[in-house]
Amino acid sequence: MTVAQVGLHSIVYTCTITDLFNPMFCFVMQIDEEVAKLLQLKAKLGGDDGKIQFVLKTPKETLTGKYGEDSKLIYDLKDQGGELLSLRYDLTVPFARYLAMNKITNIKRYHIAKVYRRDNPAMTRGRYREFYQCDFDIAGQYDAMIPDAECLKIVYEILSELDLGDFRIKVNDRRILDGMFAVCGVPDDKFRTICSTVDKLDKMPWEEVKKEMVNEKGLSEEAADQIGEYVSMQGGMDLAERLLQDPKMSQSKQACAGLTDVKLLFSYLQLFQITDKVVFDLSLARGLDYYTGVIYEALLTQAGVAPVVAEAQNGAPGSTEESVSVGSVAGGGRYDGLVGMFDPKGRKVPCVGVSIGIERIFSIMEQKAEACAEKIRTTEVQIMVASAQKNLLEERLRLVTELWNAGIKVQCICIFNPKLLSQLQHCEESGIPLVAILGEQELKDGVVKLRVVATREEVDISRGELVEEIKKRTL
Amino acid sequence: MTVAQVGLHSIVYTCTITDLFNPMFCFVMQIDEEVAKLLQLKAKLGGDDGKIQFVLKTPKETLTGKYGEDSKLIYDLKDQGGELLSLRYDLTVPFARYLAMNKITNIKRYHIAKVYRRDNPAMTRGRYREFYQCDFDIAGQYDAMIPDAECLKIVYEILSELDLGDFRIKVNDRRILDGMFAVCGVPDDKFRTICSTVDKLDKMPWEEVKKEMVNEKGLSEEAADQIGEYVSMQGGMDLAERLLQDPKMSQSKQACAGLTDVKLLFSYLQLFQITDKVVFDLSLARGLDYYTGVIYEALLTQAGVAPVVAEAQNGAPGSTEESVSVGSVAGGGRYDGLVGMFDPKGRKVPCVGVSIGIERIFSIMEQKAEACAEKIRTTEVQIMVASAQKNLLEERLRLVTELWNAGIKVQCICIFNPKLLSQLQHCEESGIPLVAILGEQELKDGVVKLRVVATREEVDISRGELVEEIKKRTL
Repeated sequence: MTVAQVGLHSIVYTCTITDLFNPMFCFVMQIDEEVAKLLQLKAKLGGDDGKIQFVLKTPKETLTGKYGEDSKLIYDLKDQGGELLSLRYDLTVPFARYLAMNKITNIKRYHIAKVYRRDNPAMTRGRYREFYQCDFDIAGQYDAMIPDAECLKIVYEILSELDLGDFRIKVNDRRILDGMFAVCGVPDDKFRTICSTVDKLDKMPWEEVKKEMVNEKGLSEEAADQIGEYVSMQGGMDLAERLLQDPKMSQSKQACAGLTDVKLLFSYLQLFQITDKVVFDLSLARGLDYYTGVIYEALLTQAGVAPVVAEAQNGAPGSTEESVSVGSVAGGGRYDGLVGMFDPKGRKVPCVGVSIGIERIFSIMEQKAEACAEKIRTTEVQIMVASAQKNLLEERLRLVTELWNAGIKVQCICIFNPKLLSQLQHCEESGIPLVAILGEQELKDGVVKLRVVATREEVDISRGELVEEIKKRTL
Repeated sequence: MTVAQVGLHSIVYTCTITDLFNPMFCFVMQIDEEVAKLLQLKAKLGGDDGKIQFVLKTPKETLTGKYGEDSKLIYDLKDQGGELLSLRYDLTVPFARYLAMNKITNIKRYHIAKVYRRDNPAMTRGRYREFYQCDFDIAGQYDAMIPDAECLKIVYEILSELDLGDFRIKVNDRRILDGMFAVCGVPDDKFRTICSTVDKLDKMPWEEVKKEMVNEKGLSEEAADQIGEYVSMQGGMDLAERLLQDPKMSQSKQACAGLTDVKLLFSYLQLFQITDKVVFDLSLARGLDYYTGVIYEALLTQAGVAPVVAEAQNGAPGSTEESVSVGSVAGGGRYDGLVGMFDPKGRKVPCVGVSIGIERIFSIMEQKAEACAEKIRTTEVQIMVASAQKNLLEERLRLVTELWNAGIKVQCICIFNPKLLSQLQHCEESGIPLVAILGEQELKDGVVKLRVVATREEVDISRGELVEEIKKRTL
């Protein structure tokens, strides 16, 4: 489980550059594959021999008809050549297009990159036109629910490792929702619109949701009440089992297929040891059109860590439209039909994926840091080479070079005769833990005065032992 | 020297997200500063209290008038609100804008991100509309040539560490060029255009360059010949010293200032132990308008490693227009006036920076890998959990979980009953070095059969010792 293991820094800051070979704005980045993968891709794209094996489609067309009501947020642009282009709206649709165009039938990758929404920017609410998404997807024909379980394991690992407080992962299935709507008497053509109303349950009480269903969407009160009963249900494998026996629910083949899969999913989640945080929740209804099976969403449950900041930008596809619930930090699901929409022959590649709300997560981490007034180092520099006396710039640079060449992260103030106080202050402000102080006496003695910034303790260290000493003290 | 020390992977794949807080397309990423820095920035931008302290300018205006002839490649776009926007052309101008808007007077940062050129894409020649640049800059009022020398040290370290073959870093100074033009009798208003002609010396013989100067640009033959003499000069500190005594050159105050700085620069380069690869070369003339002092460019000198691929995209600012010489992989210089252009009061912040041609470097590394048919691992997975027998999916997933939880990078095929051969083949293809094979017998004995993919050697390891054994074998 490479993705989840690498920890916050790698997750957030790591990305590779397969997209070097893709000239359009709608592109896919590969991760965990480096030069070799680039070579393979290049070969697939036709390499240097001038023969490109696919016709590049304008991304505008690529994005059309994938997002339903969210489409209004797609960021169109015109280039001077008069082509219609759009900035990508999420990473899922470009990933599917990429698989189809390159005839890739199985791949496991993560991708951290920016997406664009034609929203009114509201910086104070964390709503931007340009923001990051961080996706992990598994594409390929596998046995049911195994990749789906792996996606959930990854979400579990990330949220555990990042120490954001307690969390829950809600799980449901598009087929269970559709089956439920059918057996509750919702007309076929109202499934999607009722689904988006159900989706509001995480921020609206049932009474209001019901009102919207009945008054705005024209559903019968009876149907709404039946839905209300189901969507209040939460549980685990037991609930899936119970619903399979439910006289009404079991009438829907679709619902049964979904429930059987949810049961199977939970058996894998047990093996993965993550059932303590996963809840089968019939009220979970993610808004996007492309989901075909399991859907899920992770929520932080600890009070106080759920900012209104970044409301619409938890990185989960479609979050803007779905109006993310307080504390939602990841979401995703299975989308088995999307790749086929891009393939000329309609060949399907089953996919399941998850989007981690990295911007949301950052704002939560910031709030936590603010709350405990924690001082976080803003530099990796291990040591400052300083001097108390004048005319020692050359000697400072000589020592800097010695340490650089030994792999130490070292800095000095780029001024002929800086004041010792200003050098020490710089260390305190930026969290540099050590100072190597040079003076005429130290140079004569072949030592440096090593100062620990935090304690102000100073000790003479011989030049030859300095590198080891720094490494020991900045492990 | 954080940047140069982190090695290829970090250099190429690492980026942070200050730009989360910037709602426009023209933005700056901060590196080496994490949550704390984000907080500071947020505070500067007005934080959550709704008061934003600067007026966001349309990037169109931001970019106008900075690139000279290159401007035709700026990628304009219109958003639906009717605002004029451009996609950023390089990282230097947005960096300068960022400093000015945030009143930052000193900072050292690197930034890896995409830029956009309204060029005709030619994938087979590595010419894209969207590609990466990788910049390092030092802004701030420091004593002359110290930050400049650090930039060169970084280029030196990167190119040495990446093992791309031998290289040279050419150094010159905009003031020396201008002074040279002046003393050679070039009219003031022809400095820039003659400068771009000089810049062609790396791919055109002097005779042709001279012809362009005389026939196309109307320079006198005499002036051209005098320029020809100077631009053939290469050396080190000694050359700078000699030119300071040159009867003609020494008439120009500007040239003398440049030559004095080049001398000083070389004294620091000596301290940094990098003079073996640095050449003072009077023919180096980078095309962009914003340089004010030292300029430099790094070239690979080894035959055969210089592809035509990525010609216009070595990541150096302005490379498209300047028509990069074969083998150029980095470039930069001092631009002391750019920040002032964005400051309402014209306050200047001296800057020096370098742009590493990461796409160019990648294509060279690919060529090298291709040439030696080197097999590069495309995955970090350490071990595959496999089985030879049927109905062991649960046992495989149990072991996978054990290993995941112990921090091992492990994978299994997401199929109920995969064939052993296909599992082993997958390892060979993707470079997974170990396989843990489970069977009824192994389960009974509490062991796994550990197979080394390369040698096909197999050995039984007890379940309790497996993690240590994997770690030992995949150091």
